[in-house]
Amino acid sequence: MTVDARVRVRYAETDQMGVAYYGNYFTWFEVGRVEWCKANGFNYRDMEHDDGVMLVVAEASCRYKAAARFDDELLIRTSVLRARRKLITFGYEVLKAGRDELLATGETTHLVTGKDLKPRALPEKYFAIFGL
Amino acid sequence: MTVDARVRVRYAETDQMGVAYYGNYFTWFEVGRVEWCKANGFNYRDMEHDDGVMLVVAEASCRYKAAARFDDELLIRTSVLRARRKLITFGYEVLKAGRDELLATGETTHLVTGKDLKPRALPEKYFAIFGL
Amino acid sequence: MTVDARVRVRYAETDQMGVAYYGNYFTWFEVGRVEWCKANGFNYRDMEHDDGVMLVVAEASCRYKAAARFDDELLIRTSVLRARRKLITFGYEVLKAGRDELLATGETTHLVTGKDLKPRALPEKYFAIFGL
Amino acid sequence: MTVDARVRVRYAETDQMGVAYYGNYFTWFEVGRVEWCKANGFNYRDMEHDDGVMLVVAEASCRYKAAARFDDELLIRTSVLRARRKLITFGYEVLKAGRDELLATGETTHLVTGKDLKPRALPEKYFAIFGL
Repeated sequence: MTVDARVRVRYAETDQMGVAYYGNYFTWFEVGRVEWCKANGFNYRDMEHDDGVMLVVAEASCRYKAAARFDDELLIRTSVLRARRKLITFGYEVLKAGRDELLATGETTHLVTGKDLKPRALPEKYFAIFGL
Repeated sequence: MTVDARVRVRYAETDQMGVAYYGNYFTWFEVGRVEWCKANGFNYRDMEHDDGVMLVVAEASCRYKAAARFDDELLIRTSVLRARRKLITFGYEVLKAGRDELLATGETTHLVTGKDLKPRALPEKYFAIFGL
Repeated sequence: MTVDARVRVRYAETDQMGVAYYGNYFTWFEVGRVEWCKANGFNYRDMEHDDGVMLVVAEASCRYKAAARFDDELLIRTSVLRARRKLITFGYEVLKAGRDELLATGETTHLVTGKDLKPRALPEKYFAIFGL
Repeated sequence: MTVDARVRVRYAETDQMGVAYYGNYFTWFEVGRVEWCKANGFNYRDMEHDDGVMLVVAEASCRYKAAARFDDELLIRTSVLRARRKLITFGYEVLKAGRDELLATGETTHLVTGKDLKPRALPEKYFAIFGL
């Protein structure tokens, strides 16, 4: 399932090139992931708090195709590309809302860990959500 | 005692005006506070970790006099303006290194709390450091 | 006129205290200002781009009353407290959405400048909007 | 040539997991690039300002091996992996200073552009520096 989150580029997120700084896309990916969880029936916050499970980033990448500018409304289109019990990969497309112009694509791969940051398996109640 | 910390303005910290974004000064104040602690004989990290004491921000302010630009080296000149057992106020001057041009001044007031974010008194071993 | 903007606390905006880092409130104030402009009939982006007018921050302050946490939805309630042709002060309340719990209050004062960051007067077409 | 830059993890850069947020590594990579330029005889700032040349990020990636924590001093070990007249790839290692423990590795690939963000060739005076 693919889920769209919306963000609007903040002045704080621009740099002196006049466009959004490249590091901010990874924060927007996070916004996309959190929204993906909600649309799939659970809150990431509760997963951490109630189940003591964290999705720690092991790899992250982004390809930038066109610049995002201040006050642009963006869609962060998020899906799960691959999931195993201990490793989940999300994929992202960043689009300019309305025009559906593709600005960037990216991936993040997460280790499932406990609060101690040590690897563990995803609790069974999340299996169906991640297609396991 | 007044302590100088050094930061260099990062590209990420600029905005499309071509100057450092105003919110970043509060991060630089934090760098100044951490350095003030070190110069006064303790690590803020250890204070949190070993003593379970946190300095939670209750008020923060900044006056901006001149812009900081990408790659400028700044001095964050930090001192304690007022200290009581449960409330500490730091003062800051942000200067352009070398030229000693004053770019900004600011203050942050902190509640002394435990890890539960509830007010408590500063441990006695810190009294002399804060002039109590 | 008071205008509400909504933000959701991002994981990136939390710190190891488990709450939103104090510097981020100033970014949220910016989100509030941008929304205030839109609700009052103009885009801040166009003001910069079309009129060459910038609102450069001269002073900023925030009082923190209660912590904002990851995934909390916040209202940034923005109004103009004082306006002159060369100086505008915005006021902010940060509330937890739904519960209307007041988390913080703040102010930012802005110099009206040209693209060269030098003071100038606000263009006449904005007078009525700012009650001048 | 490999160049080491030093950063200290800021409180602002931690998140509620108690470690540095994954997006900040890309800002540290920027610190590494800027330092690489200096050690190789030019300022990135001057390149933008004097030559009108920008290095716009086209791709960025990071692999995270171990967490960086508040107040850790890090080395950002930067080198040029590949360079052509219109495309430059930097490589990075993030190490914990003193212990030389590898925390992360990464790459960023940059398009050479003018101030209009349109591709152009690198000015000839930089050829030798980038091994062209």
